[in-house]
Amino acid sequence: MIKVGIVGGTGYTGVELLRILVNHPEAELSVITSRSEEGVRVADMYPNLRGHTDLRFSVPDADKLAACDVVFFATPHGVAHSLAGDILKSGTRVIDLSADFRIKDADEWEKWYGQPHGARDILPEAVYGLPELKRDEIKGARLIAVPGCYPTAVQLGFLPLLENNLLPEQVLIADCKSGVSGAGRGASVGSLLCEASESLMAYAVKGHRHLPEIRQGLGWAAGKDVGLTFIPHLTPMIRGIHATLYAFAPGLEADLQALYEARYANEPFVDVMPAGSHPATRSVKGSNMCRIAVHRHAATGQIVVLSVIDNLVKGASGQAVQNMNLMFGLDETTGLNHVALMP
Amino acid sequence: MIKVGIVGGTGYTGVELLRILVNHPEAELSVITSRSEEGVRVADMYPNLRGHTDLRFSVPDADKLAACDVVFFATPHGVAHSLAGDILKSGTRVIDLSADFRIKDADEWEKWYGQPHGARDILPEAVYGLPELKRDEIKGARLIAVPGCYPTAVQLGFLPLLENNLLPEQVLIADCKSGVSGAGRGASVGSLLCEASESLMAYAVKGHRHLPEIRQGLGWAAGKDVGLTFIPHLTPMIRGIHATLYAFAPGLEADLQALYEARYANEPFVDVMPAGSHPATRSVKGSNMCRIAVHRHAATGQIVVLSVIDNLVKGASGQAVQNMNLMFGLDETTGLNHVALMP
Amino acid sequence: MIKVGIVGGTGYTGVELLRILVNHPEAELSVITSRSEEGVRVADMYPNLRGHTDLRFSVPDADKLAACDVVFFATPHGVAHSLAGDILKSGTRVIDLSADFRIKDADEWEKWYGQPHGARDILPEAVYGLPELKRDEIKGARLIAVPGCYPTAVQLGFLPLLENNLLPEQVLIADCKSGVSGAGRGASVGSLLCEASESLMAYAVKGHRHLPEIRQGLGWAAGKDVGLTFIPHLTPMIRGIHATLYAFAPGLEADLQALYEARYANEPFVDVMPAGSHPATRSVKGSNMCRIAVHRHAATGQIVVLSVIDNLVKGASGQAVQNMNLMFGLDETTGLNHVALMP
Amino acid sequence: MIKVGIVGGTGYTGVELLRILVNHPEAELSVITSRSEEGVRVADMYPNLRGHTDLRFSVPDADKLAACDVVFFATPHGVAHSLAGDILKSGTRVIDLSADFRIKDADEWEKWYGQPHGARDILPEAVYGLPELKRDEIKGARLIAVPGCYPTAVQLGFLPLLENNLLPEQVLIADCKSGVSGAGRGASVGSLLCEASESLMAYAVKGHRHLPEIRQGLGWAAGKDVGLTFIPHLTPMIRGIHATLYAFAPGLEADLQALYEARYANEPFVDVMPAGSHPATRSVKGSNMCRIAVHRHAATGQIVVLSVIDNLVKGASGQAVQNMNLMFGLDETTGLNHVALMP
Repeated sequence: MIKVGIVGGTGYTGVELLRILVNHPEAELSVITSRSEEGVRVADMYPNLRGHTDLRFSVPDADKLAACDVVFFATPHGVAHSLAGDILKSGTRVIDLSADFRIKDADEWEKWYGQPHGARDILPEAVYGLPELKRDEIKGARLIAVPGCYPTAVQLGFLPLLENNLLPEQVLIADCKSGVSGAGRGASVGSLLCEASESLMAYAVKGHRHLPEIRQGLGWAAGKDVGLTFIPHLTPMIRGIHATLYAFAPGLEADLQALYEARYANEPFVDVMPAGSHPATRSVKGSNMCRIAVHRHAATGQIVVLSVIDNLVKGASGQAVQNMNLMFGLDETTGLNHVALMP
Repeated sequence: MIKVGIVGGTGYTGVELLRILVNHPEAELSVITSRSEEGVRVADMYPNLRGHTDLRFSVPDADKLAACDVVFFATPHGVAHSLAGDILKSGTRVIDLSADFRIKDADEWEKWYGQPHGARDILPEAVYGLPELKRDEIKGARLIAVPGCYPTAVQLGFLPLLENNLLPEQVLIADCKSGVSGAGRGASVGSLLCEASESLMAYAVKGHRHLPEIRQGLGWAAGKDVGLTFIPHLTPMIRGIHATLYAFAPGLEADLQALYEARYANEPFVDVMPAGSHPATRSVKGSNMCRIAVHRHAATGQIVVLSVIDNLVKGASGQAVQNMNLMFGLDETTGLNHVALMP
Repeated sequence: MIKVGIVGGTGYTGVELLRILVNHPEAELSVITSRSEEGVRVADMYPNLRGHTDLRFSVPDADKLAACDVVFFATPHGVAHSLAGDILKSGTRVIDLSADFRIKDADEWEKWYGQPHGARDILPEAVYGLPELKRDEIKGARLIAVPGCYPTAVQLGFLPLLENNLLPEQVLIADCKSGVSGAGRGASVGSLLCEASESLMAYAVKGHRHLPEIRQGLGWAAGKDVGLTFIPHLTPMIRGIHATLYAFAPGLEADLQALYEARYANEPFVDVMPAGSHPATRSVKGSNMCRIAVHRHAATGQIVVLSVIDNLVKGASGQAVQNMNLMFGLDETTGLNHVALMP
Repeated sequence: MIKVGIVGGTGYTGVELLRILVNHPEAELSVITSRSEEGVRVADMYPNLRGHTDLRFSVPDADKLAACDVVFFATPHGVAHSLAGDILKSGTRVIDLSADFRIKDADEWEKWYGQPHGARDILPEAVYGLPELKRDEIKGARLIAVPGCYPTAVQLGFLPLLENNLLPEQVLIADCKSGVSGAGRGASVGSLLCEASESLMAYAVKGHRHLPEIRQGLGWAAGKDVGLTFIPHLTPMIRGIHATLYAFAPGLEADLQALYEARYANEPFVDVMPAGSHPATRSVKGSNMCRIAVHRHAATGQIVVLSVIDNLVKGASGQAVQNMNLMFGLDETTGLNHVALMP
């Protein structure tokens, strides 16, 4: 059994990690930390876990974390910077769900996150945990940066086009729609039911922190810099991201359906839907799947890719466990066979 | 492996059965029938099942059903009446999720369901599939009537009081709130998002079909006839039933918390919450759990019991699988360890 | 034109007052206060008001408020206690939407609200602003306590029975369901979309602050003390209260439908629905109407009254304006002719 | 008073017309037709109208309609084709909310709507009822084609750019998100709460009927053919359209904010938000306003326009009444001063 620790388990990615891990056949939850909830039973805070775990929140303790085989960080940005280094030294592996190690250029990170980068020394060895892009590196990694939710949906949607160099020079567009859980469990007015339900709005049009992360990944796939207009929208639902991706390739004659099916044929968590499909976010609710449909708009020939994930699963905690499975030599799908809840 | 057939798998209880059974370690889906969708892949109708099953809908075929170890009926009322008898003759067991065999008094059934009872011959051997009330009978049964959703939440909430004969002569009250999935997948105006969301209303105040079923169960527990005012409400959510139960016992001195905890101490799917709790329906979303809290109203001393279930799981398909586990000698919880999706 | 001031206009009852008053033909918004938002244009905070008002929030100023004909308080409990007295001295009338003057027994108020009552001197002259109960007093009042949302729905539902002394000695039951806007615009975790949507739960079963207010009003109607079990529920919608009321009157032969229709025949904002109706909260969304249906449960003879309001209109700001109309000799319905938004 | 008839008043645009017209100071509802609901009181079908109208549905009667000053069609496609001509002959004006007269090219109409165009004779005199584009023609029109919901949001968002010829040759993109009421009140599985809530999906990617209508309007504004990729999405809310519009103008130096403000300075129902704004659909819920924000994406310079309307008001019934006001010489805003319901 893999001994697992979680730092900062009170937010939505934390409880989602717990939902997955309490039923994971090869993992054993050993410690979960929270300064604010010290001593509280996890199941008292999250009653869905009653009967599944007796664990209590404890204050972060270096020795207890060092005794784990792997520690997940489900913390605000900056926390993993200060703690991950010491944990790694003890031989324990680290899977960070925050943005701390996602961007390889520390200066760029500081620009977008507005704080000093606190772990430039270990940044180089961090592996970007998108298995569809970095599987081999993940297997040997000690430190994983789990991709953001938008970046996961957008990158998986664009990869086949970029890896095959099918797009002429252009600015790509990612029009993305997210459920409210992407904003976390913090008590902010904008996330109140009375503010966010029965409404839809764009936000961060001037620039969202996921933009540099997405561009980094698209650049890796394309082998060159890729321009991107990324517009996120807040939508009145709990879970789900729908990325609608636009690219223009006037003369392109490739069979896009075949291209996507081939690219993802062996990916357990990317499902290329039949031609003409419109994947709904609810088809992945609670599951680690990304469903993709690729279209060409009849009137204009523009390529339109539809990519959906559950932001808390494939966009966060499920992908984190997928990384753990790879790092520990397990079958990649272990403990991740959830069927989406529908309806 | 238990060979499983499903008759009428296109509705919400059907797809929920599939969600549970595709990951059940001891069950093997063998046949699923639908006249209207013959030949269609189940996963094309319900994309959440893509990658989990390749089964196609077929027209009901007596031989194929007879070759199963157990057949679930997820059909409109009346269908099981006409088919269950023949299936039983072949030695295959039947678990009926419709109301066909729930009420022991066939005349009463006809009054409420407005059609002739089509299987009076096998009605006597049907066992009411509420494990908390009929576990031993279920183990030996060939024909199970899975309880309705409201009846499950209401009976589990009242049982400890009635079994111990703690209530004086009185009319009990069950004020129940259900998500819209209880109305099924039929295309009716009242279930449209634009009609049912952002609103709440009572319905069937004059009398709901679950009333005689609930009274039958409460009567079994009490050993006498029990009067009940049952008022269901339609609430703007997909899943969940919240039963708020009222009983008046002026002189009662019993420790209700202890009573409930003792009654359900060994029940794997009834969770008595700590004193003072307010269970939320989302704490059981997608799980087979019933969570109960028992209160006494400070100002009046009235007993108020709060009982929540997921109407599609403990209120239908999960309970059906719980029955299957019991009938086939498996651990009762096999394949039913889902953690509720929260948020 | 009536010169209107609003103290504390940043919450939901404040913006709802504005929605109603900007189109009120006899009212002129003169001042709106908020310490935290001083200088901010109201329409920048609430874009639905763009084009309807250019008013800015200002800090409360005694002279400016004294120059108004009427001042509404849409403030947390306690604020009106400290300010209302001085405003009244200047000849300006006060309509308080908080709970500060609702309960005539100041000791009782202190018990439920956990703070000293700060205005015992003017409490006696405060009129409880439920026009259907206190119309004549309201017309001559200088200080109005606008009823709470639950109390409005519950009292209007029970009045005809109690005023006619039709119920034997008993504990009444009010099972109430509220939208989330009843919890206000404060940033609390429990009101987040991800916590409150797709779920339903009871709360404050041990005792809710509206209980003594409701019992006071029922007592006025009955001419004696009335026992009440009041259980509120949080439901996944923005607006609306549905009160399901239970009373038991075994031998009662009165024609309840006729009784209710007669009682409310001349009430512009109480609509007794036809016999057998199930009013939905959406039928009053955005309007000042209370819709009521009265039933007798077929199996038990129990009286079941269904009463729905929009908690922000008839349950708060609309009722406040209805009071203003009465106090200033206007037609009671002036500016309150909104048709509910449906769908 | 303008005598008003409505043909086909049982759908969502019909009831929304009623909501607006019952409070319109210059209009008098005279007749409302529905074959299926003949004799039913409108307020029995739509209880929000109880107390506002006593009208009953009647079968369409040529004389009664001819006695009106104006007849609105809120009917499925094709109905206005067969009835409008005769009504016009009687001197009664017609405002059609269906698509029957929106597209000037009858062959194109037939291609998209899959049925013969039944009124080619009167098509030439139909005026496209977008006041911001066709105000003068509307004033003198006898027959109005009220624009579709998506076309209203998209055209208003692009007009300032196209009228000023600021965009180089390119394919524009309109990524649109609609509430479910856009699908109407028909009982279809896809519009059920259990199917459409807690989910988001694109639809009609291959081609949506509003595409030719939008291109027609953009072409009028630009003075030339305009290429458009239009992708609609179904979102889990009742009302609202959010159009996110993309255009690329690399060298453009114009002050877009000033351009938009100037273009719409005198438009009563187009609100250009301050620079940097993100209009939410709820800011126009129940109102006839279109709110627009214009951005340039920092990283790419791409123009991003955000345009929101209530699909049932500015996208249908409100715009229809705005047309009526213009046709009858009233102030354009008469009866259309609703403040959006927020929260």
